[in-house]
Amino acid sequence: VRTIKIVLAYDGTGFVGWQRQATGRSIQSEVEDALARIEGARVAVVGAGRTDAGVHALGQVASFRLESPIALPSLQQALNAMLPPEVRATSVAEDAPDFNARFAARSKTYRYQIVNTAIMNPFLRLYAWHVPRALDLEAMNAAAGLLRGTLDFAAFQAAGSDISGTVRTLSVSRWTSQRDGGPAGGAMLCYEVRGDGFLRHMVRNIVGTLVEVGTGRRPPQSIEAVIASCDRGAAGPTAPAHGLWLVAVEYDN
Amino acid sequence: VRTIKIVLAYDGTGFVGWQRQATGRSIQSEVEDALARIEGARVAVVGAGRTDAGVHALGQVASFRLESPIALPSLQQALNAMLPPEVRATSVAEDAPDFNARFAARSKTYRYQIVNTAIMNPFLRLYAWHVPRALDLEAMNAAAGLLRGTLDFAAFQAAGSDISGTVRTLSVSRWTSQRDGGPAGGAMLCYEVRGDGFLRHMVRNIVGTLVEVGTGRRPPQSIEAVIASCDRGAAGPTAPAHGLWLVAVEYDN
Repeated sequence: VRTIKIVLAYDGTGFVGWQRQATGRSIQSEVEDALARIEGARVAVVGAGRTDAGVHALGQVASFRLESPIALPSLQQALNAMLPPEVRATSVAEDAPDFNARFAARSKTYRYQIVNTAIMNPFLRLYAWHVPRALDLEAMNAAAGLLRGTLDFAAFQAAGSDISGTVRTLSVSRWTSQRDGGPAGGAMLCYEVRGDGFLRHMVRNIVGTLVEVGTGRRPPQSIEAVIASCDRGAAGPTAPAHGLWLVAVEYDN
Repeated sequence: VRTIKIVLAYDGTGFVGWQRQATGRSIQSEVEDALARIEGARVAVVGAGRTDAGVHALGQVASFRLESPIALPSLQQALNAMLPPEVRATSVAEDAPDFNARFAARSKTYRYQIVNTAIMNPFLRLYAWHVPRALDLEAMNAAAGLLRGTLDFAAFQAAGSDISGTVRTLSVSRWTSQRDGGPAGGAMLCYEVRGDGFLRHMVRNIVGTLVEVGTGRRPPQSIEAVIASCDRGAAGPTAPAHGLWLVAVEYDN
């Protein structure tokens, strides 16, 4: 029995999310179904991050145990031949016997993309949030900086969650103006965030709040009161799923 | 009555192409249907290039005549509100009364994108052709250069076409290695071509032939014999539609 670590890139459009559900296509079920054909038996796949419906990944990491003696390059080829074209295994490697993609993850890096132009780029409509109002990037960055460090993120947790430990550490929390927003010109704004863990909808709730800072509805410093409140009602709305990307999962070694 | 010139960007996935067909969604029908609601009467729209099903556009140009006195910014806003999100009017302007987007076009610029990596980038699967075999960019560029100038492109015309005049002038015909092919790394190869006119499937047939040069199946110099043959059978296969982009249409002034 080998323990395998794979890196996956996927277009989350049209999936119910990472996790297998009673109905609908999930990334996990696509990978598990492909592996079951290779193994000739059910294979349980553990993902580092449970991305929601519509969320994309460049570097999701997953792990599983395999009895089959198939060589790793053949495993990668067979997986990519069976997976739908929206999902690609970009790397396949053997790891330590007790490796678990979820529990061994030291941190995760997400990116949230906003196209800040009057007219949306039609090629980014499923991959970035269109915010036509003018956004003050400097104010958004000042607010983003207040989220760095070890803080209680309860105010940014999806309503109805009953996770008791809501303290997380963010080592990166910043906005950049990445590149052209498309044929009509204009800016693509990217929020990059790295943390040791994320609560449900946390990145999307942070982005929804920081966009309210960008439009002038909230001053940057008000983020401190939102954090202190531990109240979901004090933060802004949840940004749409399709602007969110799981960029990478970081491990020791 | 005003004559209006609009620039359109569209994701051609899911459309039967530019031109209105008996069945299926076309870009032309979407634009004409939206304009009919604004005008309160049928509006005939002329497109500069008749892109095929699955072909994308960054700068398609179209023209039409409008009785409605609607202000141009409002016209653009109304159009984008009614068009599906895959199609955006990126510019709307009044032009000379006799302007016709098709007949006034001096030249058109197309781009063909190839992802030349073992594993396809899932986010480019609908926007570039995946060619996993190694391609010799230098050989492809040598062959592309032989297509510049005023030549008879009959060999690159879709079989069954009965256009008599098959001489066209290409001012640009070159390959560049644009940027990263995605999460698994590797090159994106772009063929850029500008000409005073294009025969049916001409760019895709050129690309299919130049890729055969890239894999070593044909020497670069063999392109001269293909041109001289005026025989579709002497050229290579038709590259898939989804890698092709109408980048811009050029006019005088």
